[in-house]
Amino acid sequence: MSEQEGPRARPFSDAEFADRLAAVQAAMASAGLDALLVSDPANLYYLTGYNAWSFYMPQCLVVPADGEMHLMARAMDAQGAHHTAYLPLDRVHGYPETLVHRPDVHPYEWIARRAQEMDLVQDRSGFRLGVELDAHYFSPRAYVALREALPKLEVTDSHELVNWVRVVKSPAEQEMMRVAGEMADGIMRVALEAVQVGRRQCDVVAEIQYAQALGARTLGGDYPALVPMLPTGPTAGTPHLTWSDELLREHEATTIELAGVRRRYHAPLARTVSLGQPPARLAHCASATGEGLQAALATLRDGVTGREVHEAFRRVIERHGLSKESRIGYSIGIGYPPDWGEHTVSLRAEELTVLRSGMAFHVILGMWMDGWGYETSQSVLVQPDGAELLTRLPADLTITT
Amino acid sequence: MSEQEGPRARPFSDAEFADRLAAVQAAMASAGLDALLVSDPANLYYLTGYNAWSFYMPQCLVVPADGEMHLMARAMDAQGAHHTAYLPLDRVHGYPETLVHRPDVHPYEWIARRAQEMDLVQDRSGFRLGVELDAHYFSPRAYVALREALPKLEVTDSHELVNWVRVVKSPAEQEMMRVAGEMADGIMRVALEAVQVGRRQCDVVAEIQYAQALGARTLGGDYPALVPMLPTGPTAGTPHLTWSDELLREHEATTIELAGVRRRYHAPLARTVSLGQPPARLAHCASATGEGLQAALATLRDGVTGREVHEAFRRVIERHGLSKESRIGYSIGIGYPPDWGEHTVSLRAEELTVLRSGMAFHVILGMWMDGWGYETSQSVLVQPDGAELLTRLPADLTITT
Repeated sequence: MSEQEGPRARPFSDAEFADRLAAVQAAMASAGLDALLVSDPANLYYLTGYNAWSFYMPQCLVVPADGEMHLMARAMDAQGAHHTAYLPLDRVHGYPETLVHRPDVHPYEWIARRAQEMDLVQDRSGFRLGVELDAHYFSPRAYVALREALPKLEVTDSHELVNWVRVVKSPAEQEMMRVAGEMADGIMRVALEAVQVGRRQCDVVAEIQYAQALGARTLGGDYPALVPMLPTGPTAGTPHLTWSDELLREHEATTIELAGVRRRYHAPLARTVSLGQPPARLAHCASATGEGLQAALATLRDGVTGREVHEAFRRVIERHGLSKESRIGYSIGIGYPPDWGEHTVSLRAEELTVLRSGMAFHVILGMWMDGWGYETSQSVLVQPDGAELLTRLPADLTITT
Repeated sequence: MSEQEGPRARPFSDAEFADRLAAVQAAMASAGLDALLVSDPANLYYLTGYNAWSFYMPQCLVVPADGEMHLMARAMDAQGAHHTAYLPLDRVHGYPETLVHRPDVHPYEWIARRAQEMDLVQDRSGFRLGVELDAHYFSPRAYVALREALPKLEVTDSHELVNWVRVVKSPAEQEMMRVAGEMADGIMRVALEAVQVGRRQCDVVAEIQYAQALGARTLGGDYPALVPMLPTGPTAGTPHLTWSDELLREHEATTIELAGVRRRYHAPLARTVSLGQPPARLAHCASATGEGLQAALATLRDGVTGREVHEAFRRVIERHGLSKESRIGYSIGIGYPPDWGEHTVSLRAEELTVLRSGMAFHVILGMWMDGWGYETSQSVLVQPDGAELLTRLPADLTITT
């Protein structure tokens, strides 16, 4: 694999793609599915390498119980799919432009017909078609159009079947995530230096996005599934606020959440900067959370449950008089907007899934208080003997005076 | 309105928000809806000012036939909604964290119950609840959960009801779009200079994103609904390809699509750069397309149909031996990932909608050929006497030698 790669340079071997399809078809057999309709762009990328900002229009991959997959997309996107997808031209099908944003017809009628013509799907009772009922880019209107076009077969929720196959990363994927982690460290260093009294929030974001695109070494950065988050001052008590052009002020804290991304593989990272000596409550929260993070990371390894990792964190912060209601981490890997989480394993009290080597997590401790907040995190790979850090930047509160 | 604004500085007056709600409730009355469930983040922003990257989790606004709206969101997001939303605290409701990404329960069960408790929705036959069946962030699983929680009432497709209200921009919105247009021109100038032989695609993107965040004058830029598109060389025949770290090469053309964004209002812009003297076919396409763009813009004014604008373009390029199957523009305004189109009026042969003053369009001419491509565009406001250019950069092919 050369250092410098374009859309035409392919990041994974044919054998790896064959393994991925085999794993998905095995999971389909266990779930009793005769075919699977994949709409989540992260799952499309995982199974075929297809990568374009075309997911805002209906598109999907039809995966039969055995045999080859077929990609269905808008004609203008289908004609260029071979630039990224490991699919021969005769397995890519474009629906006509006249079906776009029309009140009376829907592309999924066309998709259903084409899938039947190719015998990928049979509209008969007893035929079970899995669909991704919670994918961001498979709308209820698409679902209704599909059901009406295929009234006899059984449409059933795939329950993130492909996401669950993605959860354990191959050696090649782990390498991709290490590069993403190296990028995240570098980008965060830029961000921590950029946060200064009197600069605008958007000026800091400009520096972050510049660093995100440059990447690390000679390897270019890819776009993150989320834009940089930069809640500041009183708004730091709220996650998911995007930036404004307000000035950064003395004695305010800014939480920063960003990711390094290499070929759609994400290593997210969060940190907090205090402009001036932090108030006692923030210093205390940072110290307790840092200790909790260490406890969580020390617990995280092949064979433990998500619940045990959460419990290790909870015990520490409770001793310091703090609590946190939301989960402390989630599975990561391939991401597309609007989310870099894999929608599978969470690190929380209710999570009984056993962690396995090759899984990857963003262990993120967001402490959102009334009118202030603190965040820190690391991205990690689960290994037999513990957590391998993908990001290595010290997790402490940064104090800029 | 001060030049420097934060999330706490509100861009529109209370009166304007009242007008927007009144217009939506009037449209609901025409459509015979007793309540409307709004999930599209652009529609949430339009109606309430609520603006956060929280749309990857279920959230919605419940709009009754008359009376006040209520926002339902994940608890961690609901607690900070007042930073951006024009809603008092008692009209924002947070569902518990334990409902996030669980196979057995869904936040829309909670939302349905809460909406009934507040008498915003009544589960009885004859009650018509509109939902946005094609919104990106309202999944089929959410739809199914809602239907199961409210089995007696009639759930019906809103058919982009709020999007259609958004189509004519108020004077304050038009001002916002003029600022976005000024930003787009400046960002594109940066991009056109950055495209040079031997630079990586991602280096150009770094410059674009830096300029996008800085904005124009003292006004900060907001994030665009689409990342910069940069199809280059043979991939320029394909829209929607994102960047790589390949080097830009002599004698290749790069198409660039980006937007200036002010407080979620978008002015998109596309241009093409040829590194070296362009081949005859590209020069011919650029010249014909430029002439077609002028014809389309000369036609565009209050009172004409989308079809007439399309026809003016088609006639010109046909005379030059070219054709284009896809639409030549679409309505723009507020945008959230993954799309800055409003999903309402298109400029195409089938569009019989009459254009009205205050509508805004991205007139985009993407000529995607086999192995090469050309793009140019302008963002415009419809005025009584013609098209007001939001972007003013010359629309020609840029030749860099």
